[in-house]
Amino acid sequence: MENKVQEALEEIKRGTSEIIDIESIEKLIKRYYETGENFYVKAGFDPTAPDLHLGHTVLIQKLALFQKFGGIVQFLIGDFTATIGDPTGKSETRKVLSEQDVLDNAQSYKTQVFKILDESKTEVMFNSKWLKELGTGGLISLASNLTVARMIERDDFSKRYESNTPIAVSEFMYPLLQGYDSVAMNTDIELGGTDQKFNLLMGRTLQKAYNCKKQQAVLMMPILEGLDGVQKMSKSLGNYIGVTDEAFDMFGKVLSISDELMWRYFELLSSKSLNEIAALKKGVENKTLHPKDVKDSLAIEIVDRFHGVGSGEKAKEEFKKVFAKKDIPTDMNEYTFEGEIWICQALVEAKLVNSTSQARRDVKANAVSLNQEKVSDDKLNLQIGEYILQKGKKNFAKIIIK
Amino acid sequence: MENKVQEALEEIKRGTSEIIDIESIEKLIKRYYETGENFYVKAGFDPTAPDLHLGHTVLIQKLALFQKFGGIVQFLIGDFTATIGDPTGKSETRKVLSEQDVLDNAQSYKTQVFKILDESKTEVMFNSKWLKELGTGGLISLASNLTVARMIERDDFSKRYESNTPIAVSEFMYPLLQGYDSVAMNTDIELGGTDQKFNLLMGRTLQKAYNCKKQQAVLMMPILEGLDGVQKMSKSLGNYIGVTDEAFDMFGKVLSISDELMWRYFELLSSKSLNEIAALKKGVENKTLHPKDVKDSLAIEIVDRFHGVGSGEKAKEEFKKVFAKKDIPTDMNEYTFEGEIWICQALVEAKLVNSTSQARRDVKANAVSLNQEKVSDDKLNLQIGEYILQKGKKNFAKIIIK
Repeated sequence: MENKVQEALEEIKRGTSEIIDIESIEKLIKRYYETGENFYVKAGFDPTAPDLHLGHTVLIQKLALFQKFGGIVQFLIGDFTATIGDPTGKSETRKVLSEQDVLDNAQSYKTQVFKILDESKTEVMFNSKWLKELGTGGLISLASNLTVARMIERDDFSKRYESNTPIAVSEFMYPLLQGYDSVAMNTDIELGGTDQKFNLLMGRTLQKAYNCKKQQAVLMMPILEGLDGVQKMSKSLGNYIGVTDEAFDMFGKVLSISDELMWRYFELLSSKSLNEIAALKKGVENKTLHPKDVKDSLAIEIVDRFHGVGSGEKAKEEFKKVFAKKDIPTDMNEYTFEGEIWICQALVEAKLVNSTSQARRDVKANAVSLNQEKVSDDKLNLQIGEYILQKGKKNFAKIIIK
Repeated sequence: MENKVQEALEEIKRGTSEIIDIESIEKLIKRYYETGENFYVKAGFDPTAPDLHLGHTVLIQKLALFQKFGGIVQFLIGDFTATIGDPTGKSETRKVLSEQDVLDNAQSYKTQVFKILDESKTEVMFNSKWLKELGTGGLISLASNLTVARMIERDDFSKRYESNTPIAVSEFMYPLLQGYDSVAMNTDIELGGTDQKFNLLMGRTLQKAYNCKKQQAVLMMPILEGLDGVQKMSKSLGNYIGVTDEAFDMFGKVLSISDELMWRYFELLSSKSLNEIAALKKGVENKTLHPKDVKDSLAIEIVDRFHGVGSGEKAKEEFKKVFAKKDIPTDMNEYTFEGEIWICQALVEAKLVNSTSQARRDVKANAVSLNQEKVSDDKLNLQIGEYILQKGKKNFAKIIIK
């Protein structure tokens, strides 16, 4: 049994940035194997934007892993602040969510996360339940557990304080509320991003202050790099794979990452065991495996996860059909234009033909393609966008219209 | 009418350390004289210790003054914090008051303060009413109105912060709650001690933040010096006149103050107008008035206030009878003994007689007095205390027995 516990711990440690009190985690898993007793693993989510990308699922994958070893996931939707409006003086820009909004968003979360989490081992919770009850007096008592000096030590607060960037007194309440959630939820382990360390530790502090029988362990996950392999995955940077992306797009996006980034994604996103991944890596190193095939297998795993088993293979086939059936040169000349341009003019400018009249004849002869589709209309104007313009079988040019 | 307003303002300014927004106060009084419309004058009191001395009544006198000019006094009992227990981490030492305790203390306050305040123009209020309702969300919204930097600027906080003396986050809530009281109470003017300036101004800040139609003016009173004329009046220093002191003691304590301190007490404690006081002062200066008589009049006024009209004169007569009917020298020899002493022995030790047998004869001849009362028992033993021992008309000694 000791072996099983150690294997579980290896998987739990995988890809983490930091674990506080791994001994507690070990004990909980051991107890589960011995007695079948479950334990609680918490992670908090913003109730406003349940539009997840793979960056978010790193944490959710880890939650799912705990479910294998006796963990009951406490999927906490932090609806309390959303229903009271913005407390940091920016009330005009932040929308107050109605209860219905919160429920709708929770439903949307469920649709997305139960593709990863085992629903039967998950409790979806809302912190408004106990935070509302806390009341004025309860909140003041709560706030008596931390000193101003300790709060200002928090990395972002200390920077803001030193640079005279205003910190509203109310902002001091949030770490306390997050910590109090762990008291109310009787949490054994809390997961979060590395940037959440201060708040995660608050749970430990407050469980002690409130005389709980346990003090939660803390497990922090790193930020996932986006498709570019450099910046963090984010909607606004456009380097993301959305959980609700179409299977075809999802597949293509995974294929677009570098081989190096692929191993990072295996570590943080794949359900393959560490041993399996090590075997793949070895295969690539000794050239018994082609990296492209390994990347395909990752893409298939991820598409299967969000679109059902089999859809990964289907996406792969579709992808092959569309992009792989013709040989498109990997580099071609680029021509950039401002405003729309007549296709015949574009053919001339891109030096694929000598004159617009020749171009017109070529279009009529079905010899011109745009993005691998034949062009039949010789009056076509190209609008803003990027195009692969092709004449005959071997003459390509990239057209960018701004 | 302008004259009346100006006279009122002169009385209001009298003895104050600082007034913020006197223009508002002027407008409120003017409006009262023109339309009879009242305005609200708030002061907050600790619900735990309703055992007042004259130091506390300086503020209450000022409240009473406002009642003459249209002010409705909001006598605020800060019961909220008392019923939630101590929030600054010292919960073991501070007693949580029950609702009944709070009501009992409020009753005790009333008994004391309605000797000064006009009950018909006073509203006794409890801030638990609106602070409980505020709730977790309301309190966080409230806390969004102030920055940490601004809070740390408060004099006592900045000193503690710089000296690394812990400040609980909850302590930041108190100025906010006090300020919010003014929002909930629709206060026009708040009175307090000079040490309360930050909290008093918070009322103005929050009334603005909560879009109230008014921003309260603030009037600060100085700390009253105790009987020694140097340190502040306080129970623990023993230099106080308690509101519930016996008339006789109260009278005697006022008489014991220096002539200089007497004028300070006139300014801060007397209901006499500034003109009347100026006349008294002039009388003393040009010797048409004896300072002792002026001090008598102050003592009579104060005793009358707390024991009813006429009791001041009565106390004065009693005082005369006891202390003033015989000429006691202001300085006499002092003799200190440990443990009790036989009166005849004391007469010998104090060199008032030559022998105990002579002493015994003198007692029997009614020639010996103790504290101006004839002694008839020649076996009397003096217990621990201070005594004026007298033989015949002119021989005195002070006896101190420890």
